[in-house]
Amino acid sequence: MNVAIYLPSETKTQDWIRMMGELMPDWNFHPLTAVPDPEAIRYAVVWRPTTGCLRPFPNLKAIVSIGAGIDHVLADEDLPDLPIIRTVGTDLTQRMKEYVALHVLRHHRNMPALQASQARSEWAPVVVPPATRRRVGVMGLGNLGAEAAKCLSAIGFDVVGWARSPKTIDGVTTFSGAAGFGDFLDGTEILVNLLPLTDETRGILNNDTFNRLKRGASIINAARGPHLVDDDLLGALASGQIAAATLDVFHVEPLPSDHPFWQHPQITVTPHVASLIDAPTGSRIISRNLRAFEKDGTVADLADARRGY
Amino acid sequence: MNVAIYLPSETKTQDWIRMMGELMPDWNFHPLTAVPDPEAIRYAVVWRPTTGCLRPFPNLKAIVSIGAGIDHVLADEDLPDLPIIRTVGTDLTQRMKEYVALHVLRHHRNMPALQASQARSEWAPVVVPPATRRRVGVMGLGNLGAEAAKCLSAIGFDVVGWARSPKTIDGVTTFSGAAGFGDFLDGTEILVNLLPLTDETRGILNNDTFNRLKRGASIINAARGPHLVDDDLLGALASGQIAAATLDVFHVEPLPSDHPFWQHPQITVTPHVASLIDAPTGSRIISRNLRAFEKDGTVADLADARRGY
Repeated sequence: MNVAIYLPSETKTQDWIRMMGELMPDWNFHPLTAVPDPEAIRYAVVWRPTTGCLRPFPNLKAIVSIGAGIDHVLADEDLPDLPIIRTVGTDLTQRMKEYVALHVLRHHRNMPALQASQARSEWAPVVVPPATRRRVGVMGLGNLGAEAAKCLSAIGFDVVGWARSPKTIDGVTTFSGAAGFGDFLDGTEILVNLLPLTDETRGILNNDTFNRLKRGASIINAARGPHLVDDDLLGALASGQIAAATLDVFHVEPLPSDHPFWQHPQITVTPHVASLIDAPTGSRIISRNLRAFEKDGTVADLADARRGY
Repeated sequence: MNVAIYLPSETKTQDWIRMMGELMPDWNFHPLTAVPDPEAIRYAVVWRPTTGCLRPFPNLKAIVSIGAGIDHVLADEDLPDLPIIRTVGTDLTQRMKEYVALHVLRHHRNMPALQASQARSEWAPVVVPPATRRRVGVMGLGNLGAEAAKCLSAIGFDVVGWARSPKTIDGVTTFSGAAGFGDFLDGTEILVNLLPLTDETRGILNNDTFNRLKRGASIINAARGPHLVDDDLLGALASGQIAAATLDVFHVEPLPSDHPFWQHPQITVTPHVASLIDAPTGSRIISRNLRAFEKDGTVADLADARRGY
């Protein structure tokens, strides 16, 4: 079986080809940009494919997104109409819940203020309420959001969740749809975004959303850059409506070195590491999914292109 | 009933007198340094009492430590031989487990490196293993240590625990006594100290301990300053045996502004806030304990002065 692999970095493409080859020695992996026989390619494994890059392969059976989201695949306006397999797994869910727990706790315990005091060699205790009296709102309750919400609840936070359709999660009060969004935001002090990026969720982190939160709230965006209206965040930080933000994703990645987020005292920038799919972890998941799809013509983590996730 | 209150800060002493008075309007609370009738005092509620300061009260029935530990009370070399009531409660255990989870996650996810990259506006992803492949060792498995260990296990870490006597905690591999200490340390990458301070545990965070950990380990001390041999830590950070430390407690508090820990790039200093007992939280717990002791002559959280905790 022949597979084409594409990531924007050539070094990473080679890493993936080596790892996938070790796990599936009976399959052949080629860089998508240097395929010897395009008609022989049955699968494409891609991260941020360029427009039209999958057209040269007439016998493709499925596309594999190197990511839990498929927005970066759907961004190809000349995408063949084929099944798209998402990459999700316990390692990736684990990594996301760690990231969310870390950054919720950082804002809850006001670590940025304590670190600023340390920089001045100043002993300045900050009293915060226990997590049981701190409301955290999680937007998006798929694999990643549900596990993150459960973890926050285990730590002791008062957790609420919101998704497009109704969900039930032990220990978490859930809201759904446009009708439930305002109630979800009311009283939330730390807002975590784990939504898929779709036409409905693009720009959802905007002034209307920020103004509904408790004054001085914090924002954590670990989903996609275009969920956030950058200028609305800068304004809300200046006004004090939002006290602090942690951002892992951006409209343009890597975040350009002159972007105002980098040196903003109220913003923590992390370089898209919340749930990093490295080649060793990702290739294990993708090799299982490819074998399952090849055997049965389907797989558990099939995306719905019309829904967008 | 008459109670004397002492904290090193006069403002805080007045806060506690007001809060305790609101919760127990039928009792009388006085600053220990300005008691109208010393013979009428039955209880003393203290944080870091000065040597001999409890001698003027011949009819004391018990001493209340404003803290989970009693080392700061036992440091009074002229202490009357009386029951000592510790201050522990769900709010305090909750706060400690949040602090431990936050700082274990910070070291696990290498946040200090990511923050240094942000300071340089540099996009530099760091790949770390999932928490399931990271061993965290918790020293001390009393109320605080046991809850912290369970929380770390819920987040996904590979958790081991060590205490003086054998303990059983779901999801945590435990070791005990001097015989089990080396095995506990082997393979530990993040070491959390929550031990009581006793003659046996003073200086336990020393070179022998550091050298037994995995190279590049991190240290979190949220117990007492004298658990740590400061110079051993500075040496282990310089050699790379220890990569980073978070310290909440110090030999002298507040930490003197010229202490090398403040500006050390591998040390995070927090100003004794891990499980801060503020007057609103502490006075609720202490009022319940005082009423229970007055009624029954005992209370669940009685310390053992000979054992030291």
